[in-house]
Amino acid sequence: MRYEPVSIPEKFSKFSEHYRPKVIAQMNDYQFKLARVQGDFVWHSHEHTDETFLIVEGELTIEFRDGQVKLKQGDMFVVPKGKEHRPRAAVECKIMLIEPAGTVNTGDAGGEMTAPDDVWI
Amino acid sequence: MRYEPVSIPEKFSKFSEHYRPKVIAQMNDYQFKLARVQGDFVWHSHEHTDETFLIVEGELTIEFRDGQVKLKQGDMFVVPKGKEHRPRAAVECKIMLIEPAGTVNTGDAGGEMTAPDDVWI
Repeated sequence: MRYEPVSIPEKFSKFSEHYRPKVIAQMNDYQFKLARVQGDFVWHSHEHTDETFLIVEGELTIEFRDGQVKLKQGDMFVVPKGKEHRPRAAVECKIMLIEPAGTVNTGDAGGEMTAPDDVWI
Repeated sequence: MRYEPVSIPEKFSKFSEHYRPKVIAQMNDYQFKLARVQGDFVWHSHEHTDETFLIVEGELTIEFRDGQVKLKQGDMFVVPKGKEHRPRAAVECKIMLIEPAGTVNTGDAGGEMTAPDDVWI
């Protein structure tokens, strides 16, 4: 039987849009998603789940109503369930998101930045 | 409120043992664990869960009864629930494991390579 690694750099080379997460792997009912982000995202929260950000390349700020966290390559952060947050990046940043399958990128906020769910690459 | 990133390189600097996973973050009931691995681990499987390997530095081979997968920095692989596997690394490799809290490193095999569970760093 032939088993293939999932290469994060190789997967990033396959898309260029911003704020459009792509699924690269699934573990039980959780998915690993890659995204390129640049500019300000929308304020939102995820009512039913924590959400994990892992910085693959670049710098990302996650704003909260009562503070912020600045993340760089090799950093990770778990945004607690129900906590309002807004990711932003002055220049393009590559991130991995880990969250339950079916988690919508804009959470409770909706709107035009809502990306199609469950898009594999 | 002050929020702190979880720095993967900084966490790795805090321990040196092999095959002793350390928890660095939790998302819902899943944990992110760092491990330094070198040499052959034991054949084992996890009856109730998939297990994710992400290679932070170095090279890791995961053997299966019917094949193997060779992973390098930036690669990831999800070992399916119930699938027998044996990680091995000729030279030290740094990995991140993502799996449900309570997952024992040796799964169904037990033995002297079994590490204490839920050790945070």
